Amino acid sequence: MSQPSLWAVPLGGLGEFGMNMLALRSGDDMIVIDAGLMFPEQELLGVDIVIPDVTYLKQNKHMLRAIVLTHGHEDHIGAMPYILADLNVPVYGTQFTLALVRRRLEEHGLLDVARLRQIAPGQTTEIGPFQIEYLHVTHSTIDCVALAIRTPVGIVIHTGDYKIDPTPVDGKPFDLHAFARYGQQGVLALFSDSTNVERPGFTPSERAVVVRLEELFRAAPAKVVVSCFSSSIHRIQQVIDIAGSVGRKVGLLGRSMVDNVEIAHDLGKLRVPDGSLVRSQDLRTFDPRRLVVLASGTQAEPMSALSRIAVDNHRLLSLAENDTVILSARIIPGNEKAIFRMIDHLFRRRVLVYYESGRNAPIHVSGHASQEEMKILLQLVRPKYFVPLHGEYRQLFQHAALAQQVGSVSGQVLLLETGRPVEFTADGHAYEREPVAAGRVMVDSGSLEEVEEVVIRDRKHLSEDGVVVPIIVIDKHTGEIELSPEIVTRGFLPAEDGQETLARAREVVLKTVEGSSSEEKMDWSVIKEKIRVDLKRYLNKHTSKRPLILPVILEV
Amino acid sequence: MSQPSLWAVPLGGLGEFGMNMLALRSGDDMIVIDAGLMFPEQELLGVDIVIPDVTYLKQNKHMLRAIVLTHGHEDHIGAMPYILADLNVPVYGTQFTLALVRRRLEEHGLLDVARLRQIAPGQTTEIGPFQIEYLHVTHSTIDCVALAIRTPVGIVIHTGDYKIDPTPVDGKPFDLHAFARYGQQGVLALFSDSTNVERPGFTPSERAVVVRLEELFRAAPAKVVVSCFSSSIHRIQQVIDIAGSVGRKVGLLGRSMVDNVEIAHDLGKLRVPDGSLVRSQDLRTFDPRRLVVLASGTQAEPMSALSRIAVDNHRLLSLAENDTVILSARIIPGNEKAIFRMIDHLFRRRVLVYYESGRNAPIHVSGHASQEEMKILLQLVRPKYFVPLHGEYRQLFQHAALAQQVGSVSGQVLLLETGRPVEFTADGHAYEREPVAAGRVMVDSGSLEEVEEVVIRDRKHLSEDGVVVPIIVIDKHTGEIELSPEIVTRGFLPAEDGQETLARAREVVLKTVEGSSSEEKMDWSVIKEKIRVDLKRYLNKHTSKRPLILPVILEV
Repeated sequence: MSQPSLWAVPLGGLGEFGMNMLALRSGDDMIVIDAGLMFPEQELLGVDIVIPDVTYLKQNKHMLRAIVLTHGHEDHIGAMPYILADLNVPVYGTQFTLALVRRRLEEHGLLDVARLRQIAPGQTTEIGPFQIEYLHVTHSTIDCVALAIRTPVGIVIHTGDYKIDPTPVDGKPFDLHAFARYGQQGVLALFSDSTNVERPGFTPSERAVVVRLEELFRAAPAKVVVSCFSSSIHRIQQVIDIAGSVGRKVGLLGRSMVDNVEIAHDLGKLRVPDGSLVRSQDLRTFDPRRLVVLASGTQAEPMSALSRIAVDNHRLLSLAENDTVILSARIIPGNEKAIFRMIDHLFRRRVLVYYESGRNAPIHVSGHASQEEMKILLQLVRPKYFVPLHGEYRQLFQHAALAQQVGSVSGQVLLLETGRPVEFTADGHAYEREPVAAGRVMVDSGSLEEVEEVVIRDRKHLSEDGVVVPIIVIDKHTGEIELSPEIVTRGFLPAEDGQETLARAREVVLKTVEGSSSEEKMDWSVIKEKIRVDLKRYLNKHTSKRPLILPVILEV
Repeated sequence: MSQPSLWAVPLGGLGEFGMNMLALRSGDDMIVIDAGLMFPEQELLGVDIVIPDVTYLKQNKHMLRAIVLTHGHEDHIGAMPYILADLNVPVYGTQFTLALVRRRLEEHGLLDVARLRQIAPGQTTEIGPFQIEYLHVTHSTIDCVALAIRTPVGIVIHTGDYKIDPTPVDGKPFDLHAFARYGQQGVLALFSDSTNVERPGFTPSERAVVVRLEELFRAAPAKVVVSCFSSSIHRIQQVIDIAGSVGRKVGLLGRSMVDNVEIAHDLGKLRVPDGSLVRSQDLRTFDPRRLVVLASGTQAEPMSALSRIAVDNHRLLSLAENDTVILSARIIPGNEKAIFRMIDHLFRRRVLVYYESGRNAPIHVSGHASQEEMKILLQLVRPKYFVPLHGEYRQLFQHAALAQQVGSVSGQVLLLETGRPVEFTADGHAYEREPVAAGRVMVDSGSLEEVEEVVIRDRKHLSEDGVVVPIIVIDKHTGEIELSPEIVTRGFLPAEDGQETLARAREVVLKTVEGSSSEEKMDWSVIKEKIRVDLKRYLNKHTSKRPLILPVILEV
């Protein structure tokens, strides 16, 4: 019988920000760690979300035993509804993580068929040849775990997302002891979060925001609105606590905020003292000096609570001079324009707005480890192999360089990318293997359907100079081309300016048709291409534009 | 006769980043300060640049005496070719500023007709009732001036862009004495740059980058490429100087880099020691340990030198392991994705890449004043009225708040926006006046033509779900509609998936036509609208998409 080995197959999140997914396979058994989504770049026109291509998993469907989730952020669970539809295997996760998954699956009508297995930090589960211990780690949301996995060739640790928060809001610290224990036993490979590798020093504790929030709550002459990610249960807890200590009550606005507070509260993971909440329908009449409102919409999402409040278009709350808005979240690159537009609206109504701008004590802290925490983790685990996860290429590269510099990796630092597997063999070697099918699948969330590259290329082309549709008509009895080409356009030139250009363009089409041989006229694809080329040349010369040209031949 | 007064009319740059333009009018005489462009947000599809709407200037063409430029950055001079075409008045600017303007005008064939008037710091010119002294200020480019303008109702100061650099690279400090002198004489109104109002403290001197650049140049085992804005003559000077001091020679790549170095050198504003340059055709063979290359393309512009080098597609230079790239520029929000993609390409070829990431000594510094400099300026000038310029609304608002806090404004802080004038009267009052025509004009740089809002809306719609063109044919002899509707699409569904949907969509069109009364059939616009509505409903229901639907009726 052949020696056992372990394949680690990155299916997402290595070389891109988001859609984290890693498969581990030993013999005929495979597990998948996380199934995240990615929000598309603006250039992916009309695409709502991006998920990993799971062709590799489908090809090896018979081996797949389970999906194991590290925590409940979208970039770790957001692809679950799409992937479970095809690959309905058991799903392991902590209580809060599964509560979030449950809601997603319910929206997609998949909750009844899903097999969800709740685990807790400190527990161990066996899945095929893998024995998985769940280790508690600190992060910006709650109930997060790293995985310590005993495999036939050695122990593998996957950190999930983490920071080392010495003073976590829920009092549950990063499980340094477990990592130390594994470090002593000997770890074959460490797979670890690279998100903040560009940040020197230590990421501040979640508690670091208390000072400033309390100061702002106390100083506020009227209402306070705090906007944070609705999954930031620590932040929500702190807002509730600080509000209580300064004599303010808390209102909730936005569906995800209301839902997540309810979920976390029901699970006993959020302390909400009796009488500390204000019903949303009472917000307008409640004493503004005694009110804090938690609202979703930090990224200025178009229909979010905060976006609507900013333009005074929210049924339940209006803001005016002397009210305060605190944006307790990161301004995610790509969203700046929208966020700053929202902030401008608030300033125009003379609201006091506070957001990350590099001064004073922080009103937001990151949930990911900075360089010094990464170094401590590498020292604790001192693995034989180290694989940076979760990051664009530059971040993986710099995390690899940082690990080299720390010097605690006894074997090798492996710089993998999505789709590029590594095989760990029984004799302690690691080999990079041929790429497997992997990549991005673009999903239109309206239809839940994949959007193909070619369609997006066309949309991009359409978006630049619009579309021009020349139509020629062929008499099906005589085979003759009628001498009345029509041209319709959109997004090209405004109607009044375009008349003359289009009249001339019709002549160009006519000339192309007339100048073609009768053989060419028989082959519609040739005629179409000739029209396209001639029209393109004409339009580019006379308008300097390159619209998408879509010739149509009609037989009537 | 009526009392004199002064109108200040912001035509761009107040409430938006870029396209700076301010008109000053007294009686029948008007001057314009700066004529900048703005780079469009990504959502303005197919628009290359945005310039101010100068309807107000055209309406008052007979009053316009001159355009006065503060410095040569695109957001201050970039609209010149478009505006001079309509309003050919004399243009005042410093030597380097006019050299850059000249190049732009030449590209647009306007150089022969333009009337350019060179001025220098310390000089005074009279334009109608305005007596303008040019005050030297420090910034990230050279030859920058503020304007101190004597008007019939008092002295007005316009700072242009500035920081207070106590150790400028060219040895020409910010003219504190002139500002102090005007402060003593009494200033009616100060108009001032708000760009960096969110930054506490002092902006570091341009010299602050020397330490790190020298360290990196010395440490580099092979070639060094430095990318900076080609207008950053100080930065270019420092790279040339440091290269010399560590025994490296300098190559230049990128058209704007080569052009600007030539212009600045010709004007004696850049010291290039004999023998310190390497010809571009020799870069490949030159000893890499003795080479620094200055390349344009900090923002990863698609055809720029650095973008091409990153993918090893530059004729004159290739990079490999041990080479160094230093991005000595700001990562402008909106460009992150492209810049980081470029950085990833460089890391993939094992190039050592350095970019702004918050650690170590800076490799780039801003050219705009931070809060403490703004406070010093307000104390020096102690104007009666203060008007924040150059910023999005939140920045203008915070600059206004900062001025209130400093307390040196004896009259009033005026928070204006583009299009909202203020009138200063002879008796020392200021009145905000009715808005004038102002706004943004979108320009397609290929055609130099304006792009209308409706066209951009269509492009946006096209970009989301593509276009669907249903075509029905009417027999011009019988007036009958032929029962063969055709539908063509692009950017909608991939061809293979879409066949059935389109077949069914044809039936929908057919049914709409058949179900219409003969009166409806006579009115083509009614038929088109019915087809559009029915098809929209059908497609949205069956594909959850909302393509732009463009019905065509052909008479044959």
